[in-house]
Amino acid sequence: MRILVLGAGATGGYFGGRLAEAGADVTFLVRPKRARLLAEKGLRIQSPHGDAAFPVKTVTADTLSGHWDMVLLSCKAYDLDESIKAIAPAVGPESAVLPILNGLAHYGPLDAAFGPGRVIGGLCHIFSTLGADGEIVHMNNINRITFGERSGGTSARTEALAKAFGPAKCETRHSPEIMQEAWEKYVLLAPLAGMTCLMRASVGTIMATGDGEAIMREMFEECAAVASHAGHAPRPEARDLALGFLTQKGSAMTASMMRDLEAGGPTEGEHIVGDMLRRARAAGLAAPLLRTALTHLQAYEIRRKG
Amino acid sequence: MRILVLGAGATGGYFGGRLAEAGADVTFLVRPKRARLLAEKGLRIQSPHGDAAFPVKTVTADTLSGHWDMVLLSCKAYDLDESIKAIAPAVGPESAVLPILNGLAHYGPLDAAFGPGRVIGGLCHIFSTLGADGEIVHMNNINRITFGERSGGTSARTEALAKAFGPAKCETRHSPEIMQEAWEKYVLLAPLAGMTCLMRASVGTIMATGDGEAIMREMFEECAAVASHAGHAPRPEARDLALGFLTQKGSAMTASMMRDLEAGGPTEGEHIVGDMLRRARAAGLAAPLLRTALTHLQAYEIRRKG
Repeated sequence: MRILVLGAGATGGYFGGRLAEAGADVTFLVRPKRARLLAEKGLRIQSPHGDAAFPVKTVTADTLSGHWDMVLLSCKAYDLDESIKAIAPAVGPESAVLPILNGLAHYGPLDAAFGPGRVIGGLCHIFSTLGADGEIVHMNNINRITFGERSGGTSARTEALAKAFGPAKCETRHSPEIMQEAWEKYVLLAPLAGMTCLMRASVGTIMATGDGEAIMREMFEECAAVASHAGHAPRPEARDLALGFLTQKGSAMTASMMRDLEAGGPTEGEHIVGDMLRRARAAGLAAPLLRTALTHLQAYEIRRKG
Repeated sequence: MRILVLGAGATGGYFGGRLAEAGADVTFLVRPKRARLLAEKGLRIQSPHGDAAFPVKTVTADTLSGHWDMVLLSCKAYDLDESIKAIAPAVGPESAVLPILNGLAHYGPLDAAFGPGRVIGGLCHIFSTLGADGEIVHMNNINRITFGERSGGTSARTEALAKAFGPAKCETRHSPEIMQEAWEKYVLLAPLAGMTCLMRASVGTIMATGDGEAIMREMFEECAAVASHAGHAPRPEARDLALGFLTQKGSAMTASMMRDLEAGGPTEGEHIVGDMLRRARAAGLAAPLLRTALTHLQAYEIRRKG
């Protein structure tokens, strides 16, 4: 199975790197500058699960040719259009595309570009970043990638991918109900991102206010109602897990979106909070807190762009 | 009429200064350092209505003695307790206290300290600040002070104050319905402060988002409902004026509270937004946006204090 990974950044570089390290046939589609650095120093990972540095195959846009069996895609949502263009030449009739973005809004554009049959469901749990010298720095113990057929069950291609991931130093979940899992992550992420951005504060700080916990729970319920309407109500365990994270007293947790916002950068606000709100509205569900959080994010973007 | 002004800052210094400039018997209760500066350079006002620099009478806490006819109070709400202590020795049986703070929450503590009969209703409209050298810098054309008996109508003491203000270089309103006017200012200020803080953005930026105008109007209606329940529904003209400011496209307007917040300083969040929310709840009115805005302000304060 020939696997193409778009970029060699904090997420794609990590999972693609773990695959390559484990012996899978992986190529990174990168810009020329990144290709030179990888040729010189190899792909470097710093992680509690083991540091690594090893040579990897790279290709650049102008040398990209032929079709890959699997394309791993882990861009920021606001770079999705550009990323679709970048990988398009590598996607043929037999190719599959595995996006590991947050939320669900990217499936529409990916299906439109490649056909729904080529787009596998995926998500990941990892906290990683790029170091100053281009190395991938994995920050804690969590490094899970989850994938599966969006229609449910398994297939030869997802089995093959699971086999490639088998010996890799990351936790792999080949899920027969990937969309349920994607929704369960989404109903945790959307309130976390929406609330920590709207309040410009960590979960613990929000919990220390008079009404923060009540508001957090209400925003979770807005999102859970959207998931239920889509046929993916969070299961009791997922609900407890999400509410546990979202209401944990003293927690320093914020969404990466809130950190992006405080750093003055672009955010995935429309992709995560905006998409959830639009789904709520399409379902005829009131979602006043999602609406307020999205307005905050939109005001931020307008101000940021001056 | 002997008038004592607490402080000689941006607001009290301006109105007290205009009174003194017009020949009223005004004394400023200030700290020793401020007293020395005033003795050396006089009270200085820079304003489109005329620059001025003139000697003023000052008194400090340790030299304060006797009772004044009128005490003008224009502290920040979070300094109210300290300010009440400062002026208490100057308030006797025949004294009146005129607070020109925003909102309404200060009347409770003032009434408790001095008795409701001694506390006149007041408010002001001014945009001023202290300059680097201690001068009072008045930023635009607006410099209105409004006062009156809280029970309505007029009285000898408010007539006397109006007479003292008569020749002063500021707009004076001796109002027979001061509480109606205070509420009308409050139902403009609370949504302005609540929304510009919650969104961390100017009115114009909020208006440029998808739902910002709708949310702003809803927050205004939450506040207007509280005012109505208190018997002070905003009159049509006040409603139009408030909504005009609150929904003006392209407006750079923010509340001073939002500027305080972005500068990392303390805010009057509990005094303005918190008090309005508590009044809503006491009246059995839902106020979800006030609640969300207050939570944002509380999270900010918790974070600020570390």
